[in-house]
Amino acid sequence: MALSSEEANASCTEPSKETDGFFFQQTMLRIKDPKKSLEFYTNVLGMRLLKKLDFEAMKFSLYFMGYDDAANIPKDEGERTLYCFSQKATLELTHNWGTESTDMQYHNGNSDPRGFGHIGIVVPDVYKACERFESMGVQFKKKPDEGVMKGLAFIMDPDGYWIEILNPKNMKN
Amino acid sequence: MALSSEEANASCTEPSKETDGFFFQQTMLRIKDPKKSLEFYTNVLGMRLLKKLDFEAMKFSLYFMGYDDAANIPKDEGERTLYCFSQKATLELTHNWGTESTDMQYHNGNSDPRGFGHIGIVVPDVYKACERFESMGVQFKKKPDEGVMKGLAFIMDPDGYWIEILNPKNMKN
Repeated sequence: MALSSEEANASCTEPSKETDGFFFQQTMLRIKDPKKSLEFYTNVLGMRLLKKLDFEAMKFSLYFMGYDDAANIPKDEGERTLYCFSQKATLELTHNWGTESTDMQYHNGNSDPRGFGHIGIVVPDVYKACERFESMGVQFKKKPDEGVMKGLAFIMDPDGYWIEILNPKNMKN
Repeated sequence: MALSSEEANASCTEPSKETDGFFFQQTMLRIKDPKKSLEFYTNVLGMRLLKKLDFEAMKFSLYFMGYDDAANIPKDEGERTLYCFSQKATLELTHNWGTESTDMQYHNGNSDPRGFGHIGIVVPDVYKACERFESMGVQFKKKPDEGVMKGLAFIMDPDGYWIEILNPKNMKN
């Protein structure tokens, strides 16, 4: 059953001082082909590559994506690592080398077995953003006027992960 | 294969002006029992419940969690919705009513079929934070001194989702 607001509040604890300085830094998704994912997250969604890290021995690379001005990204690679891990709300894309030339597919969590659902991007105008996405050939799971929830869309990234496209004002209404 | 830095940069596009104002607002995970999850994310990780939304017809509730001062969270529920969806880096926990009294389990994405990997929380001191987590009975996937990567831990939330516990300075070293 649903929790009442009282039950929900009763399950919450006032944050301990020992958690001061904690912040939500990253969400990690595995990707099959970094070329496609980098193109999608920069060109379609306007993120930047904050930092790339290669792990030769374990044969994988990490691509940290986020929203920031280019001027804020340090040129020095050590400083850039420090900068990247100090940013809130980054997307960590993990590429296990070689997957791009196979027919494997990652699981987006929305069919069995379920778990992870989606990430969500706020945009100033959902309809305008979605018109642009359509013109770019982006795949939609839900267009803004489909279904019960108007003014809210779901698009899919190159691996089929769902991305909610939302605006705070529409959510209030 | 790994992309070279040049290939990675060549796959990135300079963000279009049409993406101005976009930001990464939420990561959605399904949870089985909101009482356990609310307790975990507030007490263990120091988040607050930014907003609870109930969808009676579809029998689910959303719990938006994040890091902010209590004073910034509006009392008025409409304003609170607007506030919540205007925050970067929130965790959206979806509770489908009734799952808490079944033996179902959500999939954390790290065994087949893989996809989503983890979320990551920055803390000022990984060792100190992990000592506290241990004293609270939190389950670990990796303690800070286990494995190759020192000073970096993975804990598990009540549904078994992995949470990286990291510090930017350790990542640089």
